[in-house]
Amino acid sequence: MTPIRIALIGTGTVGGGLLRVLARNQEEIMRRAGRGIVVARIGARDVVKARRAVGPVSGPDLPIDDDLHAVATDPSIEIVVELIGGIVDARRLVLAAIGAGKHVVTANKALLALHGNEIFAAAQARGVMVAFEAAVAGGIPIIKALREGLTANRVEWIAGIINGTSNFILSSMRDSGASFASALAEAQALGYAESDPTFDIEGTDAAHKLSILSAIAFGIPMQFERAYTEGISQLTADDIRYAEELGYRIKLLGISRRVEVGESNEEGRAVGIELRVHPTLIPARRLLANVEGVMNAILVKGDAVGPTLYYGAGAGAEPTASAVVADLVDVTRLHTADPEHRVPHLAFQPDALSSTPILPIAEVRTAYYLRLRVADQPGVLADITRILADGGISIGAMLQKEPEAGTSATDIIMLTHGTIEKRVDAAIVRIEALATALSAVTRIRVEDLA
Amino acid sequence: MTPIRIALIGTGTVGGGLLRVLARNQEEIMRRAGRGIVVARIGARDVVKARRAVGPVSGPDLPIDDDLHAVATDPSIEIVVELIGGIVDARRLVLAAIGAGKHVVTANKALLALHGNEIFAAAQARGVMVAFEAAVAGGIPIIKALREGLTANRVEWIAGIINGTSNFILSSMRDSGASFASALAEAQALGYAESDPTFDIEGTDAAHKLSILSAIAFGIPMQFERAYTEGISQLTADDIRYAEELGYRIKLLGISRRVEVGESNEEGRAVGIELRVHPTLIPARRLLANVEGVMNAILVKGDAVGPTLYYGAGAGAEPTASAVVADLVDVTRLHTADPEHRVPHLAFQPDALSSTPILPIAEVRTAYYLRLRVADQPGVLADITRILADGGISIGAMLQKEPEAGTSATDIIMLTHGTIEKRVDAAIVRIEALATALSAVTRIRVEDLA
Repeated sequence: MTPIRIALIGTGTVGGGLLRVLARNQEEIMRRAGRGIVVARIGARDVVKARRAVGPVSGPDLPIDDDLHAVATDPSIEIVVELIGGIVDARRLVLAAIGAGKHVVTANKALLALHGNEIFAAAQARGVMVAFEAAVAGGIPIIKALREGLTANRVEWIAGIINGTSNFILSSMRDSGASFASALAEAQALGYAESDPTFDIEGTDAAHKLSILSAIAFGIPMQFERAYTEGISQLTADDIRYAEELGYRIKLLGISRRVEVGESNEEGRAVGIELRVHPTLIPARRLLANVEGVMNAILVKGDAVGPTLYYGAGAGAEPTASAVVADLVDVTRLHTADPEHRVPHLAFQPDALSSTPILPIAEVRTAYYLRLRVADQPGVLADITRILADGGISIGAMLQKEPEAGTSATDIIMLTHGTIEKRVDAAIVRIEALATALSAVTRIRVEDLA
Repeated sequence: MTPIRIALIGTGTVGGGLLRVLARNQEEIMRRAGRGIVVARIGARDVVKARRAVGPVSGPDLPIDDDLHAVATDPSIEIVVELIGGIVDARRLVLAAIGAGKHVVTANKALLALHGNEIFAAAQARGVMVAFEAAVAGGIPIIKALREGLTANRVEWIAGIINGTSNFILSSMRDSGASFASALAEAQALGYAESDPTFDIEGTDAAHKLSILSAIAFGIPMQFERAYTEGISQLTADDIRYAEELGYRIKLLGISRRVEVGESNEEGRAVGIELRVHPTLIPARRLLANVEGVMNAILVKGDAVGPTLYYGAGAGAEPTASAVVADLVDVTRLHTADPEHRVPHLAFQPDALSSTPILPIAEVRTAYYLRLRVADQPGVLADITRILADGGISIGAMLQKEPEAGTSATDIIMLTHGTIEKRVDAAIVRIEALATALSAVTRIRVEDLA
């Protein structure tokens, strides 16, 4: 059988990795797919630069073009691989490829989080596939696991370390006691963080990926705009140390959970979906707490299977290319099959997506780590615990430090039991108004993940 | 579309779990599969017992038959789910179902390890699918991950905790310092070990699963009969404690690795596959070392993706049923598709399986933990280290204990660097012949898994 012809758009890190993996493992891939996969042409904004990048792997004869639209709609091409990144051009190219009847493989999480609903609808209407294993957690086959491996399950929740940059920074802060700023500088020096690291450290990248995962897990449309997002840039070395003392580690987690909310009626209780990215204390003995450096891991709780965890490299040229090739093989197998033989893009049949609402963060129930600096004088703790009790918030653990020599101020750290976030917010306002409160309250969510 | 009709043969733990999961999550499964999945008839050796077991879930009208062959070949049935266990009857029924043009889903690892090559060839010839996600590591979608998620990769090795019973016993020995016998008794009391636990504790069950995994990872036929198998029944509380002191944990691992062996010639060096199940020291900080109790986890090293790990429940009614349902949905999607659209049973196209030989254990290169009891007198250590040096075996770490009060004997523990097993065997013979050696040498393999 003749090899399937693909067009690669974008020859950056992942594009280069893809060419290398396809070249190096072509025999292994062919033995599995039963058909060769050939990059027949390349689209790149800067042809000279692209030639320099891919030449050593692909040789001088592979056509490289800066007319990206022509590449995306080339009649001789069966699959378009979009690795150009960004949103506006990527969206236009992917929709053009779909319109021309091409299958699409993409690693672009921002594109899917923002325009996935439109893109999947277009693909559905045109009868083509859009595959995106590489968009979440790099080389870990988490899309396949959630979409096909766990079909028996009502997914209860997912919790994932899905941004390697922030996990590296948090690991490094814990290992060395470094501040956020110096751990970030280290990550930048090592190439794990970009010069503008905002997307990674403020949780946006993780929220993109979480939006995709929650759509697949719960059969809902992509709803990135409703995700709650809080990054790690405000975390201090003290918080990380105190968390350790209490038996916890702090990880930037993407959490999505199906919860029953409100009163029951005849149809049972209403259901909402939590969709939130934030620093989270988790028990130090959990496997997820021991995922270090730039690695990713996603914990999925299904009602039949219980907890399952998927771990691996969440970024990097060849790990991401590994996911792109897995998609290419899947598409190669099924591109001539009837659409009914294919797995739906978002795991659920397009007519079976549900409109379950995303829960506002104020309505989320979780536990909290609260830290504040107080004057070391009688009655302080009584005032604080009274405010919490008034709010119906109960305390599970507490840590109070001796004042350092020469000061009369100290840190109080509390772990609450599960409570609704708006109650904690209200209590924090009252605590911060106390005359003995010398700092704002640091509030970090706590999850048991049992 | 009318629901797909399946026959369930066997109504034990997993069969019961399957009926419960299909009943409870039918809407969720239908939303994904686009088609209902209905158990249309049941085969069981003891109809009265089966009726009692399934009645509460399936109602009194579901036909239950003890003519298993008739159930397996029923013309109205599209998929046969074999959950009866055992080898002889299961093989006959699965081959009969295939002969009658049915697709088969099975959780039977022993059947596949012993007769998989025959069964897959029959299925191939008849154009039907045999799906077996539930045969390895229960609910963890490891078959799908290896077969489809990592298609880009040349797999370098896999190392897995794939027997929950032995992992429970080892966790319990470590936590409580218990002996093997008392940890086994505890596992039996909790229902985690059978009254005859031989298959689990002696590594046979793990070797069945490893044979399946290695076939998929390396594109080789099932070769259970060539697997090296050593169980955990000889491990002592001392070994577990000494391993901890050295920064290691002992796990029963199934390890399969592709290695270059022998001299290079024009076609490069010859390749062999290691296929071995045995207690293994691994560094305590590895995620795999922190997989506790009855949980399973498989670490896979691919050349592109690097290490990935898959964790979850390796047994139990609903976790295993979760994998069976995932297979049912896959088969439901693809049963009317051309065979070329389907994923090959063993990941590689049937005509692309390789004949890479399994390496005898004597030729395997790994590191070793060696423990022996010696007389506490001058020159003992010199004699032992001389024997090791003569064998070309170098020592990475050593632990020698003070003799206990009133004795003149002590334990010496050594960790070697990587060496060929037959050299270690030869050295052990010489060490045990020393007059100062007061015990046989305990030898446990050590893997870094970096």
